[in-house]
Amino acid sequence: MKLSVAQARALVQAAMEAVGHSAAEAAVIGDHLIDCELRGLSYGGLPRALSVIERIKSATEPKRPIKVRRESPVSASIDGGDQVGYLVAQQATDMAIAKAKASGIAVVGANETWYTGMFSYYLEQVTRAGFVGLIAGSGGHIVAPAGGTEKRFGTNPIAFGFPALDTPIIWDIGTSSIMLAEVLLAMRLEQPLAEGRAYDSQGQPTTDPAAALGGAFTGWGGHKGSGLALVVQLLGMLTGAAAAPDGLRDCGFFLLVIDPNLLSDLDDYKQRVAAYADSLRATRPLDPNLPVRVPFERSAAERAKRLAADEIVVDDAVHNALIKIASL
Amino acid sequence: MKLSVAQARALVQAAMEAVGHSAAEAAVIGDHLIDCELRGLSYGGLPRALSVIERIKSATEPKRPIKVRRESPVSASIDGGDQVGYLVAQQATDMAIAKAKASGIAVVGANETWYTGMFSYYLEQVTRAGFVGLIAGSGGHIVAPAGGTEKRFGTNPIAFGFPALDTPIIWDIGTSSIMLAEVLLAMRLEQPLAEGRAYDSQGQPTTDPAAALGGAFTGWGGHKGSGLALVVQLLGMLTGAAAAPDGLRDCGFFLLVIDPNLLSDLDDYKQRVAAYADSLRATRPLDPNLPVRVPFERSAAERAKRLAADEIVVDDAVHNALIKIASL
Repeated sequence: MKLSVAQARALVQAAMEAVGHSAAEAAVIGDHLIDCELRGLSYGGLPRALSVIERIKSATEPKRPIKVRRESPVSASIDGGDQVGYLVAQQATDMAIAKAKASGIAVVGANETWYTGMFSYYLEQVTRAGFVGLIAGSGGHIVAPAGGTEKRFGTNPIAFGFPALDTPIIWDIGTSSIMLAEVLLAMRLEQPLAEGRAYDSQGQPTTDPAAALGGAFTGWGGHKGSGLALVVQLLGMLTGAAAAPDGLRDCGFFLLVIDPNLLSDLDDYKQRVAAYADSLRATRPLDPNLPVRVPFERSAAERAKRLAADEIVVDDAVHNALIKIASL
Repeated sequence: MKLSVAQARALVQAAMEAVGHSAAEAAVIGDHLIDCELRGLSYGGLPRALSVIERIKSATEPKRPIKVRRESPVSASIDGGDQVGYLVAQQATDMAIAKAKASGIAVVGANETWYTGMFSYYLEQVTRAGFVGLIAGSGGHIVAPAGGTEKRFGTNPIAFGFPALDTPIIWDIGTSSIMLAEVLLAMRLEQPLAEGRAYDSQGQPTTDPAAALGGAFTGWGGHKGSGLALVVQLLGMLTGAAAAPDGLRDCGFFLLVIDPNLLSDLDDYKQRVAAYADSLRATRPLDPNLPVRVPFERSAAERAKRLAADEIVVDDAVHNALIKIASL
């Protein structure tokens, strides 16, 4: 099924309103999911809307309002009220940017939330405001530490964003060797995982997606990468998120925003970052056909391409399910 | 040669005073170098004192005073005056802790400095004050980005520190596949590097240390690790450090300090961090003889052991050279 961007956006928004969100909230969620589609990360786009709705419908307790627990001129601690992360993280981002405009720096944490989406989505807003940002997110445990075969970390993404002259530089990675979405997809398609990605519940290496979900994924980057996963967990715990949230709840979100003018000059910094990015692209490549890339530029190019084509391709089953939920 | 800790400290301090440092400055440098020795990282200990002295003696221009260029209640930007990093980073750490005590958060950057030592040394002070810290340091280019064969990054270390009940958790890594000190040692011992660690000036893989120094080391962690090296470079550039400092000068130093009380409660956080560290240690190990470790605990144990023995082993040539410099 092919939809225009406006059609896809309207469909997601209608479905989100149908499960209890205000029009403004549905617009925030929709914008994030559509941005995933535009950037070619469709697993986080319209199909994710169904997962969000499933999680909302299966909640045993009603969501609570998003609430600021503690606040200072440079910080806020947010109780997400078990609401979807797209809303909680957007509020955190808005607050952090406003505080950094006033104070030069801000840290905002949140917990009691789930499905926060792409950190680069928020960091793009941070860099557009002329700031540098760091986001880390802890979640339900499914990844083993280096040297261990039991789950102790979430897939624990971490991201940094830097303003440049046009496209910002945004580095946004997960610290696991494989994404949860990839394992779920492999299970649905009855395909094995690559070797070295997971242990079963007994600690034996496995390529069976179901066994991996009952055991632990491996981490990325050996001991160094495992340490970074730990860093993410500890940053998430700063806001009171559980060390080991069970399933899709009480994830920890950590956002730091810094005004480069505190340390030097923003305009000069942007120019130096852009010039440095050019020097990276000009590095003699290992493979002449694969020039060295700068993080985020491919994602931005994908989005420009799809926006120009004004076309989002959706799986028919996903499309029909969303139509039904939205009662369109 | 075996020295007591006090003897080793006195020797380093005397040598540092002999090359133009005040007694207070020499004590700061000495404490850092001795801490390296105690933690079993002797390449950064007494032998490093000789490298520091060599750099001071070979400087073409005299050092300038360390100067605060910009300052706010939450930040400081420091011109290191081409002074050794142990002094510059210590001043940055003192300022960041004082500001975080008053404001809850602080960012301090420095440039025009070199040889900053172990980031964990500063983060231990940060965690002792009850704060969480992040340090990143950019330096002279010697590492290739993923997919490239020319140098674009320094060895670009990054570290995070978290307070716990007793020993803090400090993750402190370099983003290159090999340390500069290791390559220099291999060259001195006329030993080859391991495979995959470096390219020569023509972009061909090499195991020859001299060729590697004329070409580029490889990075750690593939594209993800390369992105983290880029993050470190961009954090270093925030304070105006050159994108590509040439040799041992104008390194960038970035330090962020956060009071956990901004987001939750420090005492509760310390307990949760300690309990979580215990759960990590209790992870079922891949090898029964190799329990999962928590970053920094081995380093702290090494120090306790050497302090108890009150013994630092120094190479005779290094010892004699320091005696001569100090005119003892």
